Amino acid sequence: MSRKGLFLSFEGIDGSGKSTQARRLAESLRAGGRDVVLTREPGGSPGAEEIRALVLQGDPDRWSAETELLLFTAARRDHLERTIRPALDAGKVVICDRFADSTRMYQGLSRGDLRAKVDALHDLMIATEPDLTLLIDMDPAAALSRAKARATEEERFEDFGIGLQERMRAGFLALAAEFSDRFRVIDGNRGEADVARDVAAAIAPHLP
Amino acid sequence: MSRKGLFLSFEGIDGSGKSTQARRLAESLRAGGRDVVLTREPGGSPGAEEIRALVLQGDPDRWSAETELLLFTAARRDHLERTIRPALDAGKVVICDRFADSTRMYQGLSRGDLRAKVDALHDLMIATEPDLTLLIDMDPAAALSRAKARATEEERFEDFGIGLQERMRAGFLALAAEFSDRFRVIDGNRGEADVARDVAAAIAPHLP
Repeated sequence: MSRKGLFLSFEGIDGSGKSTQARRLAESLRAGGRDVVLTREPGGSPGAEEIRALVLQGDPDRWSAETELLLFTAARRDHLERTIRPALDAGKVVICDRFADSTRMYQGLSRGDLRAKVDALHDLMIATEPDLTLLIDMDPAAALSRAKARATEEERFEDFGIGLQERMRAGFLALAAEFSDRFRVIDGNRGEADVARDVAAAIAPHLP
Repeated sequence: MSRKGLFLSFEGIDGSGKSTQARRLAESLRAGGRDVVLTREPGGSPGAEEIRALVLQGDPDRWSAETELLLFTAARRDHLERTIRPALDAGKVVICDRFADSTRMYQGLSRGDLRAKVDALHDLMIATEPDLTLLIDMDPAAALSRAKARATEEERFEDFGIGLQERMRAGFLALAAEFSDRFRVIDGNRGEADVARDVAAAIAPHLP
């Protein structure tokens, strides 16, 4: 790893608390004097946010899985070029709420035959992984009710029920096993502060 | 080729007359009782037109070559799924003003190292070629002055001068040599009707 900075991603099912933990970590590192870029996907750069809006607004069926995958990859490429790489080159800590693992999980889950395309496209056009990925692992029923409680009209939230929520959790755990070098699985079924303490401990040895 | 319909594309530098010839061919085939879909890239389906607008409006530098390639491929995938394939499955003649060869030529020319990415992305996500590609080959100087004369604010028209126009012509001729099975090179330095006659003769043996 010849990076000057540190690239961290947070993953987890909707309602797992990953965005809260990403924000808490950013605040804590900044309080310690570090230069942190907190960003998210899809989006994270002006161009990527425009692509995000194009994908997420309107009829959920208006894009096929393949077209959506290409649009999300275009957004990721822009995000990487305009936000992530410049920050890493400047020695900053980049904290990204979702990255390529979310694509692997969601697209792979929606149609199993897509995973090979997701991987080939990633290798071809992105070819970048986080140094560490924090998976906030949480009981699917609790996460689902939390996600439902805060769902707004603003974003597409598709409630496919507890069955899918369980498959998504299993999908993330399978990715954690597949990429065990960089994944850290954190138990999210606890108070925010306890979870944050485990996150801080997991990343501490990797800080530049 | 197990297609029921016939997939034709027109290629050529700006100002070569390819769009005029595509329209003339569509009219002539329709007059002969055939069911024809005349379409264009980038665009050609509602979703692809939205992506086209996102790419072509605004500052030309706001997308990198790689991000633009991903966005154009997303548009092509949508166009293929929503417009081209259904028409071919219904036995229609599809006439497309620009297709993947334009991407090969323009992106490959702007950065030589991109051609391999263009090809890999095409094989992965599009994997479809026209049955025949009509290259309207034209004197670069004459084509350039024609393109300039009709350029509007509406679309991005980048005048890089005669040097680039010549390289683009050479790029298309190189593609015609590379894919000689499906390319037909038509001399566009003549009156519309003469060019149209050659186009009609070239496609006649392939009509379903």
